[in-house]
Amino acid sequence: MKGVNSVPARPGGTPPVIGWRGDAVVALDQTRLPHQAVTLTLATVDDLVDAIRGLAVRGAPVLGATGALGTALAVHRAERCGWSSSRLADQLDRIRGARPTAADLAAGVAAMEPLVHRGARAVEAAARSYTERVATANRRISERGADYLAGICPRGPIRLHTHCNTGALAGVEWGTALGVVRALHTRGRVRQVIVDETRPLLQGSRLTCWELGQWGIDYRLVCDGAAPYLLARGGVDAVVVGADRVAANGDFANKIGTFGLALAARHAGVPFVVAAPESTLDPGAPDGAAIPVEQRSEQEITHIGDVSVAPAGARAINHAFDVTPAELVSALVTEDRLIVAPSGPAAVVRGRRD
Amino acid sequence: MKGVNSVPARPGGTPPVIGWRGDAVVALDQTRLPHQAVTLTLATVDDLVDAIRGLAVRGAPVLGATGALGTALAVHRAERCGWSSSRLADQLDRIRGARPTAADLAAGVAAMEPLVHRGARAVEAAARSYTERVATANRRISERGADYLAGICPRGPIRLHTHCNTGALAGVEWGTALGVVRALHTRGRVRQVIVDETRPLLQGSRLTCWELGQWGIDYRLVCDGAAPYLLARGGVDAVVVGADRVAANGDFANKIGTFGLALAARHAGVPFVVAAPESTLDPGAPDGAAIPVEQRSEQEITHIGDVSVAPAGARAINHAFDVTPAELVSALVTEDRLIVAPSGPAAVVRGRRD
Repeated sequence: MKGVNSVPARPGGTPPVIGWRGDAVVALDQTRLPHQAVTLTLATVDDLVDAIRGLAVRGAPVLGATGALGTALAVHRAERCGWSSSRLADQLDRIRGARPTAADLAAGVAAMEPLVHRGARAVEAAARSYTERVATANRRISERGADYLAGICPRGPIRLHTHCNTGALAGVEWGTALGVVRALHTRGRVRQVIVDETRPLLQGSRLTCWELGQWGIDYRLVCDGAAPYLLARGGVDAVVVGADRVAANGDFANKIGTFGLALAARHAGVPFVVAAPESTLDPGAPDGAAIPVEQRSEQEITHIGDVSVAPAGARAINHAFDVTPAELVSALVTEDRLIVAPSGPAAVVRGRRD
Repeated sequence: MKGVNSVPARPGGTPPVIGWRGDAVVALDQTRLPHQAVTLTLATVDDLVDAIRGLAVRGAPVLGATGALGTALAVHRAERCGWSSSRLADQLDRIRGARPTAADLAAGVAAMEPLVHRGARAVEAAARSYTERVATANRRISERGADYLAGICPRGPIRLHTHCNTGALAGVEWGTALGVVRALHTRGRVRQVIVDETRPLLQGSRLTCWELGQWGIDYRLVCDGAAPYLLARGGVDAVVVGADRVAANGDFANKIGTFGLALAARHAGVPFVVAAPESTLDPGAPDGAAIPVEQRSEQEITHIGDVSVAPAGARAINHAFDVTPAELVSALVTEDRLIVAPSGPAAVVRGRRD
């Protein structure tokens, strides 16, 4: 992260995934994992937007907290630098637009906007509370999802398959889909987790394997194309993934490759569970076609890190997300509710919470 | 390739993919593409087996030629070193076993075995003829597949999606699935090819993009998880892939990730075409469950090249192939026949050739 003050995280300590220190946002640089745990100090809106775009901070719930804390940062900068209210609004738009598919990022900014007139310290306090609520919601998603999976897999340890990273690194404290895995693990119910490596940016290899290793959960890493064969061979009891935005009909956007995993689960007759915070639900999008899908740099595909893996001048298409139709989803779990078969007639996502 | 004599291929020339020179097999080192074109001289059975296992030579038709030429090499070595016939038989078993899923490799060895008693020069001449026949078969597969696709996509340039590498690098001269693309291109019928990068070893990025670039065909590289989203959005007219082994009922083994691409094509209602030589058909395997699937090193998943992308000690599962059920295949094209819907009651793969 050019221009960003970075220090190695305390050895042996648990580095904060996202938080506030002094007058700045602090974040674990997730691009450096699993080999280095480095904490970034994001002291300007530019720093923050670069960290979001560059995926130093990522994951739906963490992006919610980042939106809230980033708004506090912008208001601090506005007070210090004497920005006009329209300049501040522009800066908030920049934060919101840094990952257009992520509903939570925009939701975090939107939750703070009504407080902006109260000044930086008030927004900062509200953003800290917001971050704590994100962590609490993670725990509730995790336990509710574990209850559901324990119910549909009543006997013996469960073998799960997951995609991308949805653990504490994505979820402030426990995570969403990987939080469900962790909650099942605390109940002694996890046999093994199959982890998609999740090209192009390898969040599965780099982040999910790292978290599962820290928690002492047995896992096996696979390439993204392996799921249909592994699921068809049997032995996997359920697939569990997160979501970046859920439309009103239950279609949802998540990391590219999720749709293929859902097709593979359906073909093999394996339950496919989505775990996500309520902030991810977007009743304004009637279906998946209304979800904006971020396109990222072609270089993420033509290179791995700095190494070119394709001929010079090769062109690529790099949608960061795909949209999985609700018909492939067995259940959607949030901190407030469990919706079984969200494409069913009585299970519209915008329905009342339990 | 340690211990193997390697020289840079002629600049500007077309390096031979597989061939015979002096008393040795020569092969383009496909692990060095797209950045270097280096020709290996494989003067011993050890060299040859290392080149097959290490994927310096690869692709079903090329492996057929390699099996034949490798048998000639083994007989030359046997004559020079005074091997017993049982030692020679052991060496042929080693060649055959270097890629257990590839039907063509074993078929190439088997085609030469009846000639072994005639001596090295006779086997060498037969292996050269075998290699020429592989090239001719490639051309016939390519033209037959192009006829079929031109027939089902009668209007305008066609947009295709493919997986792994099935071009001249796999097929001695034109290739199989990518040969079909090339034949369509010579007819002015290709708009664009979507290329799966094909993790773990990136044959799509490294080899298919290189070949399409050489032929002047427009392409876009994508990560393996992208196909369902791209196909569902429309615009792709057909998927075309190769095969490493086809069972009697039409189930087939191909590079890991092919099954997912087939599921995605079915979901999107896009035709899914398999192009492969007759030598790939294995009537001895009644269905996909009877096809042996090679498992390769975990390090191919936990590392990219020499770079570790997962935590130290991470475990992986690395099936090199998957098995796609015949019910997902629209048509199977060989050098001798076109079988539409190979899972249909009248279309058993072991049926008579046309």
